Amino acid sequence: MATTGNLFADLSPRGADEEFTQLLRAPGMRIERIVSHGHKSPPGFWYDQDCAEWVLLLRGAAILGFEDDPEPIRLEAGDHVLIPAHARHRVEWSDPDRPTVWLAVHHGEISD
Amino acid sequence: MATTGNLFADLSPRGADEEFTQLLRAPGMRIERIVSHGHKSPPGFWYDQDCAEWVLLLRGAAILGFEDDPEPIRLEAGDHVLIPAHARHRVEWSDPDRPTVWLAVHHGEISD
Repeated sequence: MATTGNLFADLSPRGADEEFTQLLRAPGMRIERIVSHGHKSPPGFWYDQDCAEWVLLLRGAAILGFEDDPEPIRLEAGDHVLIPAHARHRVEWSDPDRPTVWLAVHHGEISD
Repeated sequence: MATTGNLFADLSPRGADEEFTQLLRAPGMRIERIVSHGHKSPPGFWYDQDCAEWVLLLRGAAILGFEDDPEPIRLEAGDHVLIPAHARHRVEWSDPDRPTVWLAVHHGEISD
């Protein structure tokens, strides 16, 4: 009756595209797993999202940059960040030597 | 500008009460960290919640029981379970030898 799974199962192989897997969708929120393999945002690219995103790094490592903050944030396992809606941000770096696994909880005005 | 923290920081010491820390509250959802030290639900006790709960075990191990399912679910790191509203459930066991760290995302009708 309960829906179950494991966040570290079926990780995409090294060299694969960044992978987004929806785990749960409910009114006003969406939970997804993201698997990165050294992915980073293209030069000059910023995420600018209509909904807030609470993100937790579960495995690996990454660096997030914010347009209005000169100090990037380095994330290790267990680190979480709340990214407000329209806070322009980018992935500056993710570990190229191991998969980086993120949990993202989007909430607010959720679009498809 | 981004709000940050680490889920494995400041864990309550062995022998402490089960600890609930609210990480985020937004309309229709609430995220909390739970730290258990061998805690389990009292005999005959069932959680019966008005809102659904998506729970992820991050560290340690635990066993969840559901009233309408004879098979308990053992959870290890990375395992997640969606517990529907009013699905009566209990913690049958959590690892007594190390902290068990959970992430719980409550959603739907959130009460205080």
